[in-house]
Amino acid sequence: MSQDTITTDVVIIGAGPCGLFAIFELGLLDLKTHVIDILDRPGGQCAELYPEKPIYDIPGLPVVSGQELTDNLLEQAKPFGPEYHYNEMVEQVQKLDNGNWQVKTDGGLTFEAPVVVIAAGGGSFQPKKPPIPGIEAYEGTSVFYSVKKMDAFKGKNILVSGGGDSALDWTINLQPIADSMQLIHRRDGFRAAPDSVNKMHALVEEKKMIFHMGQITELHGDNGQLEGVTYKSKEGELTKIECDTLLPFFGLTMKLGPIADWGLNLDENLIPVDTEKFATNADGIFAIGDINHYPGKLKLILSGFHEAALMAQAAKRIVDPDAKIVFQYTTSSSNLQKKLGVA
Amino acid sequence: MSQDTITTDVVIIGAGPCGLFAIFELGLLDLKTHVIDILDRPGGQCAELYPEKPIYDIPGLPVVSGQELTDNLLEQAKPFGPEYHYNEMVEQVQKLDNGNWQVKTDGGLTFEAPVVVIAAGGGSFQPKKPPIPGIEAYEGTSVFYSVKKMDAFKGKNILVSGGGDSALDWTINLQPIADSMQLIHRRDGFRAAPDSVNKMHALVEEKKMIFHMGQITELHGDNGQLEGVTYKSKEGELTKIECDTLLPFFGLTMKLGPIADWGLNLDENLIPVDTEKFATNADGIFAIGDINHYPGKLKLILSGFHEAALMAQAAKRIVDPDAKIVFQYTTSSSNLQKKLGVA
Repeated sequence: MSQDTITTDVVIIGAGPCGLFAIFELGLLDLKTHVIDILDRPGGQCAELYPEKPIYDIPGLPVVSGQELTDNLLEQAKPFGPEYHYNEMVEQVQKLDNGNWQVKTDGGLTFEAPVVVIAAGGGSFQPKKPPIPGIEAYEGTSVFYSVKKMDAFKGKNILVSGGGDSALDWTINLQPIADSMQLIHRRDGFRAAPDSVNKMHALVEEKKMIFHMGQITELHGDNGQLEGVTYKSKEGELTKIECDTLLPFFGLTMKLGPIADWGLNLDENLIPVDTEKFATNADGIFAIGDINHYPGKLKLILSGFHEAALMAQAAKRIVDPDAKIVFQYTTSSSNLQKKLGVA
Repeated sequence: MSQDTITTDVVIIGAGPCGLFAIFELGLLDLKTHVIDILDRPGGQCAELYPEKPIYDIPGLPVVSGQELTDNLLEQAKPFGPEYHYNEMVEQVQKLDNGNWQVKTDGGLTFEAPVVVIAAGGGSFQPKKPPIPGIEAYEGTSVFYSVKKMDAFKGKNILVSGGGDSALDWTINLQPIADSMQLIHRRDGFRAAPDSVNKMHALVEEKKMIFHMGQITELHGDNGQLEGVTYKSKEGELTKIECDTLLPFFGLTMKLGPIADWGLNLDENLIPVDTEKFATNADGIFAIGDINHYPGKLKLILSGFHEAALMAQAAKRIVDPDAKIVFQYTTSSSNLQKKLGVA
């Protein structure tokens, strides 16, 4: 299936706060943006790790939650009509003969733009994998770390592993469509919403699912097709249970991911940049926010905002080398106010 | 009259948005601040030049007025108990033998601190002077560019010059206590609130004051004591009128002021700094916000915020060289939350 290439001025990798504010700063300079994020929604760490937790150090916002900040930044970016592509991981970034960058995602999207802005925070969020020997052989066929489409699990004999919200939520949500549902956790205490825990216990009472206490030690199966697992109880007793699908939910961890393969200089998984343009060693690729490094760098959201503003000026010079950049203020420029839709 | 020296960790010169946010960032690192401003209130340009005008480029605040931003930043700084000194112009900054900086103001205040942060924006606001030969000889005795105490003008024969809000407001406010009041403006259109213009016209009707159209060309008097002025009408006619006090209100302009004499490197009235600490060439003196310069610099409030954060880390190392600085987030650190009064 062929896929049309999306051409634009700037591809922003990462829809966290810095990526979102980059849309705004680039938009003020008439640059059109497409934003790619591995998550299913904007906000990055803010929305994923602490959507409800208050942040106190955003200048001018004495208290704001990660979700509120994300919503505000989306509103601020809106006048510039950015296009968002969620659930997409950028796998390849390469220079074309015409000088543009080609960006390809795991979902089959292809972009072409003179400028790429990496605003990928600590990298992509990746699932923490349980330490079970040989689990890789089953990944993608019988072992899944996320549920992208519920339908794919219809009629399956599912074993969910974990004790957090994701484990409990998917146990409850998939149980009605699964052929059988089992949950395994190393203890009978859960770090999940009490309501979910109660629901799960009710399903066990109704004999609609089984709960096991213990840790999986071994997978059984052939050619990636799981047939069952062995788990060890606290007392050291081994039990074998049958299942064809394993869903481990052990939380997320930050991984730099494929960025490490794009030919950029890296320094302890950070991308060194200058402090004038926040440019990387690759012409036309910038890095802003938590993923970059320079002398004095602090991993603060407010620093990413500054980096986005300075980067935008340099990006404009690349996209539109003949344009005369007149530095203007949103407070006084009717030209900028028109772009913002408030003039 | 001797004045006690105020000792503190950091003296911040300028209570504009960057100076206010510096209080917060220094406060997170347990540094105590005193803030000096030449204006009679916080906010700097934001509050002085556009208190009611919307600003659109503060990240996370899609629309905010200068006054709202100032109020938010004051609230954010509040937990750290900063002390504000308004209506004070810093006249002298000098190194003491003990390595600290001594800061003296025109109001007679003396501060001593290991760190000074210059967050003075474009410098101080100074009145635009009318181009009248020899006007300097009358300044401070018969010619005043601002009204600090109304009582000083009781019983005077006042001539106000100008067509903006300040000129009209002071004409109306001083008329009742003056012996005589005259207003001169080059045309009969005013850039002032219509209500004020109407009030002035009413006073003229009631013969409580006189309005002249024209431009002052000459001052008459002796030893700084004004006796009258000559003005020229549009048609070129010269008229001499009597008065003992002249109040020209021609707006404010930004002047660097005495900062130019503190021995700091200057580059076109800007202070060059590095981008790691935003330090000047003088050890312990930092410059943040519109007054500094470095490659890529944009005079944006959001950049001043970033500069304040990085400066604070360097300031901490000077004030408390043995302290171990652990970089913490307000979202997750109960230690920082305690300082903010929210834990």
